Amino acid sequence: MGSCLQPARTNHRTIEVQNERLATADATPPIGAQSEPLAAIGDFPLLQRHQDGRRLVYLDSAATAQKPRVVLDAIDDYYRRYNANVHRGVYRIAAEATERYEAARAAAAGLVGAHPKGTVFTRNATEAINLVAYSWARHELAAGDEVVLTVMEHHSNIVPWQLVCAERGARLRYVSLREDGTLDLDELDQLLASGRVRLVAVAHVSNVLGTINPVEEVVRRAHAAGALVLVDGAQAVPHMPVDVAAIGADFYAWTGHKALGPTGIGVLHAAPELLERMPPFLGGGHMIARVDLDSSTFNEPPWKFEAGTSPIAEAVGLAAAIEYLRGLGLERVREHERQLTEYALARLAELPFVRVFGPRDVSQRGGVVSFALDGVHPHDVAEICDRHAVCVRAGHHCAQPLMRALGVPATTRASLHAYNSRDDIDRLREALAAAHQLFSS
Amino acid sequence: MGSCLQPARTNHRTIEVQNERLATADATPPIGAQSEPLAAIGDFPLLQRHQDGRRLVYLDSAATAQKPRVVLDAIDDYYRRYNANVHRGVYRIAAEATERYEAARAAAAGLVGAHPKGTVFTRNATEAINLVAYSWARHELAAGDEVVLTVMEHHSNIVPWQLVCAERGARLRYVSLREDGTLDLDELDQLLASGRVRLVAVAHVSNVLGTINPVEEVVRRAHAAGALVLVDGAQAVPHMPVDVAAIGADFYAWTGHKALGPTGIGVLHAAPELLERMPPFLGGGHMIARVDLDSSTFNEPPWKFEAGTSPIAEAVGLAAAIEYLRGLGLERVREHERQLTEYALARLAELPFVRVFGPRDVSQRGGVVSFALDGVHPHDVAEICDRHAVCVRAGHHCAQPLMRALGVPATTRASLHAYNSRDDIDRLREALAAAHQLFSS
Repeated sequence: MGSCLQPARTNHRTIEVQNERLATADATPPIGAQSEPLAAIGDFPLLQRHQDGRRLVYLDSAATAQKPRVVLDAIDDYYRRYNANVHRGVYRIAAEATERYEAARAAAAGLVGAHPKGTVFTRNATEAINLVAYSWARHELAAGDEVVLTVMEHHSNIVPWQLVCAERGARLRYVSLREDGTLDLDELDQLLASGRVRLVAVAHVSNVLGTINPVEEVVRRAHAAGALVLVDGAQAVPHMPVDVAAIGADFYAWTGHKALGPTGIGVLHAAPELLERMPPFLGGGHMIARVDLDSSTFNEPPWKFEAGTSPIAEAVGLAAAIEYLRGLGLERVREHERQLTEYALARLAELPFVRVFGPRDVSQRGGVVSFALDGVHPHDVAEICDRHAVCVRAGHHCAQPLMRALGVPATTRASLHAYNSRDDIDRLREALAAAHQLFSS
Repeated sequence: MGSCLQPARTNHRTIEVQNERLATADATPPIGAQSEPLAAIGDFPLLQRHQDGRRLVYLDSAATAQKPRVVLDAIDDYYRRYNANVHRGVYRIAAEATERYEAARAAAAGLVGAHPKGTVFTRNATEAINLVAYSWARHELAAGDEVVLTVMEHHSNIVPWQLVCAERGARLRYVSLREDGTLDLDELDQLLASGRVRLVAVAHVSNVLGTINPVEEVVRRAHAAGALVLVDGAQAVPHMPVDVAAIGADFYAWTGHKALGPTGIGVLHAAPELLERMPPFLGGGHMIARVDLDSSTFNEPPWKFEAGTSPIAEAVGLAAAIEYLRGLGLERVREHERQLTEYALARLAELPFVRVFGPRDVSQRGGVVSFALDGVHPHDVAEICDRHAVCVRAGHHCAQPLMRALGVPATTRASLHAYNSRDDIDRLREALAAAHQLFSS
């Protein structure tokens, strides 16, 4: 338990990623400037909480996002008005539930320019990736084949490939990072040159460094080498315009709870024809066309991959979250977070005892800022932030290989969403200063 | 889509299961007697709905149950007050979320006398069964081994075994039903005598016939023959006291949404030592102890089987449902449904054009009543019931092998829960009479 939190003292051989230049960045906004959050705090019940008399500052959206009231209302409305199992009922409330469930699928597909028939609802992004590992890789990989990952992947985009590669006798290769926390595409080319690579699996946005990877370029190079590409978009879809068709990835996974939606639902996009060719993953009701005693024929995609009762309330809630995000405008969400990240990097650069990881160039990074405090363990940093009613995460962030590449056992991470403001960053800075003072005294 | 609904005209070679004796059953309660529902209708927002000016009668709890307000409030409270990702956060709301999530696990385990460390949260019962198929059967079954199912299984307890048996070269065998809709245990013995049976997978309660299977006896016989047992308790746990330890099954699966809880969460119980020996199913964050580039070591059970972000709100909602069910008393729920089933069988027996399937003896059946109307397709029956604001299901109920054993393509099914009353049965009877009249005129 607590597997993603690994308290251990900060290793002082930490790689500092060009932090020295941040303090003199040209576009540093004036300290104390108040920009409003893009999303009204009033829309988010939890963000109106106070802790120890102070407004709660939530800076852990990379772990899970807060939910606007419209999402809670949609879930509540489903259970109160038309709760019924989908795809199986003749009566009116069952028909309404089915209609809303399939409308949620269309909304999820529409958000990223994907085809509804190639849009599968799963439990979370992790299950979406495992679906591909089980239903595609387990049948496609042969001994000696290669799967290419990157060192910055989340465990959810590492462990499924370890399991399937071990089973099939295939080999895992990793693309390293450059000093600035971006992918070394030359190394990708070298790996692809083996001619054995069947799949490249890569995060769209790093959950630790914030790096926005050039996934279109990765897809272009991988496809040229005959490999398929899976993109883990868990940290991208909630924060920026994503066009799955333009990216050209064969599989694209993301999750509802980071996109202002409920827990319990993830999304996998793939070409319907590709899903059609893949054998099923989970067997059960609803994914079949006909069941005989000894064998079955399967439903068409996406239903072939949705066995058992679907996350119905969760889909309805996700549809409301998508509508809310679209109302904000994903371009504007991205711009808001870009500006706020720039502000955060500038404010943290003023603290000489803080070392920030990841790209300096905010055009290449999302709203995820991992950092270390000299002489203070990340766990202690997070605890002191909590005393200041600031929620940040400390640990390996389910990215142990990246932690080892960075030379640290853990980091503290502040991650943003549309509801954050400069005031939140100022509160973080104040808490970090207090942590430093406490541990250096 | 709509795979569990297969409209086709009723086959008139239907096996009628001792319906003739129902009309003269001794304990038939007087017609029109009003017994109150055990659970107050006022607790269930959806059940206060009206359709076409009439109170909505919900008789489809075997597909999904309605939710008491306390469940909706618990979900809402989570999102409003302490929404945060679990097991990974230092700050207070993350600690509260983790505490509540693990308390929900303890509640689910406590409901059925299982060990929390042997209690895994999944997406639904189907995923729970697939977990066993992938993580146990796929590694344990050898060519020539046998898996024994029963003809009354739901597709979720058939298709996973078909898939894994096909992969491993193992063989599926089926226990038939007796004329009265109960399991033929002599045939189970004959099958077990092969000495090749590694697993028996059986429903605790049939979702079509309502048959309550003697699972303790099945376990005793299977264990004596060296086979493990998986019990699909989806239709049992919500309706009667279940003691997993007393049953002695190696695996026991059920789901939240049929137990007055939310969609998006299922439960698998197994001995922690057995889970310990099984390789992981889904790979990802949270199920690991350590991830290196080429391999990982895994967390201890149950977390080893919970990859990625958990269904947190769903667990919190399920805990509230369990508390509500315990407040009603599972003994009383069972007794209420037993009496109501007896009443339903008596009322339906008064309609000469209705043929009921399943055991006549209500001590051997749960609150699931499948039936056929002479000359009216089940789909039409359900549609006319809907016009009378009565929700019943029509189709194969994800049990096509059973439909073929019964000699019908589909049935109409009324299924009960603690919120149903005799008045609901009277409304069903009225709707069925109207359907008969419409189609015979």
